[in-house]
Amino acid sequence: LVEFNREDHAHTRYNPLKGEWVLVSPHRAKRPWCGQEEEPPEENIPEFEPKNPLCPGVVRPNGQVNPNYQSTFIFDNDFPALLEDVPSLPPSSDPLFQMESARGTCRVMCFHPKSNITLPLMTVPEIRQVIDKWIEELTELGKKYIWVQIFENKGAIMGCSNPHPHCQIWASSFVPNEPRIKEHYQLEYYKKFKRPLLMDYVAKELENKERIVTENADWVVVVPYWAVWPYETMLLPKMHVKRFTDVNSTQRDSLAAIIKVLTTKYDNLFKTSFPYSMGWHGAPTGARLHEDVSHWVFHGIYYPPLLRSATVKKFMVGYEMLAQSQRDLTQEQAAEKLRKLPDIHYKETKK
Amino acid sequence: LVEFNREDHAHTRYNPLKGEWVLVSPHRAKRPWCGQEEEPPEENIPEFEPKNPLCPGVVRPNGQVNPNYQSTFIFDNDFPALLEDVPSLPPSSDPLFQMESARGTCRVMCFHPKSNITLPLMTVPEIRQVIDKWIEELTELGKKYIWVQIFENKGAIMGCSNPHPHCQIWASSFVPNEPRIKEHYQLEYYKKFKRPLLMDYVAKELENKERIVTENADWVVVVPYWAVWPYETMLLPKMHVKRFTDVNSTQRDSLAAIIKVLTTKYDNLFKTSFPYSMGWHGAPTGARLHEDVSHWVFHGIYYPPLLRSATVKKFMVGYEMLAQSQRDLTQEQAAEKLRKLPDIHYKETKK
Ligand SMILES: O=P(O)(O)O[C@H]1O[C@H](CO)[C@@H](O)[C@H](O)[C@H]1O
Ligand SMILES: O=P(O)(O)O[C@H]1O[C@H](CO)[C@@H](O)[C@H](O)[C@H]1O
Repeated sequence: LVEFNREDHAHTRYNPLKGEWVLVSPHRAKRPWCGQEEEPPEENIPEFEPKNPLCPGVVRPNGQVNPNYQSTFIFDNDFPALLEDVPSLPPSSDPLFQMESARGTCRVMCFHPKSNITLPLMTVPEIRQVIDKWIEELTELGKKYIWVQIFENKGAIMGCSNPHPHCQIWASSFVPNEPRIKEHYQLEYYKKFKRPLLMDYVAKELENKERIVTENADWVVVVPYWAVWPYETMLLPKMHVKRFTDVNSTQRDSLAAIIKVLTTKYDNLFKTSFPYSMGWHGAPTGARLHEDVSHWVFHGIYYPPLLRSATVKKFMVGYEMLAQSQRDLTQEQAAEKLRKLPDIHYKETKK
Repeated sequence: LVEFNREDHAHTRYNPLKGEWVLVSPHRAKRPWCGQEEEPPEENIPEFEPKNPLCPGVVRPNGQVNPNYQSTFIFDNDFPALLEDVPSLPPSSDPLFQMESARGTCRVMCFHPKSNITLPLMTVPEIRQVIDKWIEELTELGKKYIWVQIFENKGAIMGCSNPHPHCQIWASSFVPNEPRIKEHYQLEYYKKFKRPLLMDYVAKELENKERIVTENADWVVVVPYWAVWPYETMLLPKMHVKRFTDVNSTQRDSLAAIIKVLTTKYDNLFKTSFPYSMGWHGAPTGARLHEDVSHWVFHGIYYPPLLRSATVKKFMVGYEMLAQSQRDLTQEQAAEKLRKLPDIHYKETKK
């Protein structure tokens, strides 16, 4: 009689934050890959490039001149998906044809004046400046908008059209799907157990340890039990923080430190500038700023596409799009691999 | 006073099949693209290649010899994500750590003996043979499994590692997320309105006409009101069919004809072999074969990634992964573009 073993047998795991399952097929990691390979990321990016609209001092296509910024720099996206002025729409009466007008603001935020620097290559104090700026933006935009999404698309493979280290901030008059669903499940759990779902989750992961990638006094990074992308991680607080704006000064320093460690490990995995999409989720803002949001726990999410090397990614297509996400290594295998990697960047070791 | 206009103003639309919203930002189509471009698909694929494991008569890596098939050919996937023998697992007690064992079968089905032929280049009777085979497989696998997912990954950009025309069939012991969610919303609607959601939807689209791409006596293709991918379409029956296995002989012929028209229009759009992931959804099978599934309507879904040309795709990253899907042209603009394209393939016109 063979006993079930999660490293050998296909299984599904539940994501309690989204009410979705993932199919884990660890035996499939052995299959050869002869499909499309990606270009490795550009290695020789110049520090400064006069035609790059994100560099200090350059003239952007719309004629505006960037300041000679020394740390971070924020400006309005020249091709925003959301604009402040959109006429209202009367409510739709047909349940099959529901449309609402959407208002918002899209900003771009540079992390550093040099184009050839990424978060793992920045110092902890430099990352702390980025964190402070994120919180400033959230405070300002959060007064007006119910949702402020900070996200970073890193790498050409993630559709990022500019190598200069930067993120985007899209504030909107609606709560988008992902946080809306996460809110639903966090609230259900809170009503039932009287504790925030993610605080219970953190406590159990800290005890179990096998999915921990790195931790410090205030934060822990895990490959979530229900991770979909091969090296997906979640950055969670050890204390109950509901919004980014609640993170205090000490915790900002420790957050900067853990971001440096995580992104360094990512780069070390395939000795490449590791592509990903990442972002922050916390309680809604705007009209909901003064509500009780005890069910919410602030956290960061990293979705990296790479599976086998700097050029072979996991394709989320076919079965994944039409049926269910599927992964080829267990979450514990991914966590162990990341955990064992050095905290020092491969480029900094060389020096 | 400016009035709301869906071609100029950002808005969100609701997908009643999935309970999700999409952000539509039509004004954003004007932005220039200077990001990653894809390789155009290989143009000179040989009809036969002795090393291609999908070709007739070749020896596959596992030593098996393919028959000299003349139309379709089916075999078990050599690297399946699902296997028949997986030991059971006791139910998980912790709501945050739910795991179930997953059983299933993965098959590969070739559409045609020639590697350089795709569905739009096949004749209607040849496509009809593919349809018959799909239904045969569904009948057989559906006896044992609750869900049988037929899907086609077309093009290297969709992670498809072999240009030979083929699809995959994954049967599983569980109902995957996508159909599970669609079932939930179809059932809710049916309870409330006593009619199948998608039959009401088809009726309204046939009346409204602006999202229709093509139609015949039995079938209609629309860019759904809530489409996420730039040229996403849905292939719907005009009569109430609950499962693929309910489609009769006349309807199979007309289905073959409309598949040829749709895939031809797709190829004509950017004069390229148009990549996509597509698949079929109908009522669950296995233990649910004899239940009342009147809320279900059988349909096909096409998710093509291209946005601007044969080499520029829409990146579903960052905001899309962390917040909400976003599109840069309206669903009506996409439908109009596809509708106006010829029904004759650009390669067949040339001849
Ligand atoms: O089995 P294939 O075609 O090599 O694999 C492809 O389709 C599968 C099912 O959609 C995906 O899980 C893989 O990521 C993709 O590369
Ligand atoms: O504005 P960017 O960085 O050019 O655009 C990128 O990120 C956006 C937000 O995630 C996506 O909608 C685009 O598809 C992607 O190319």
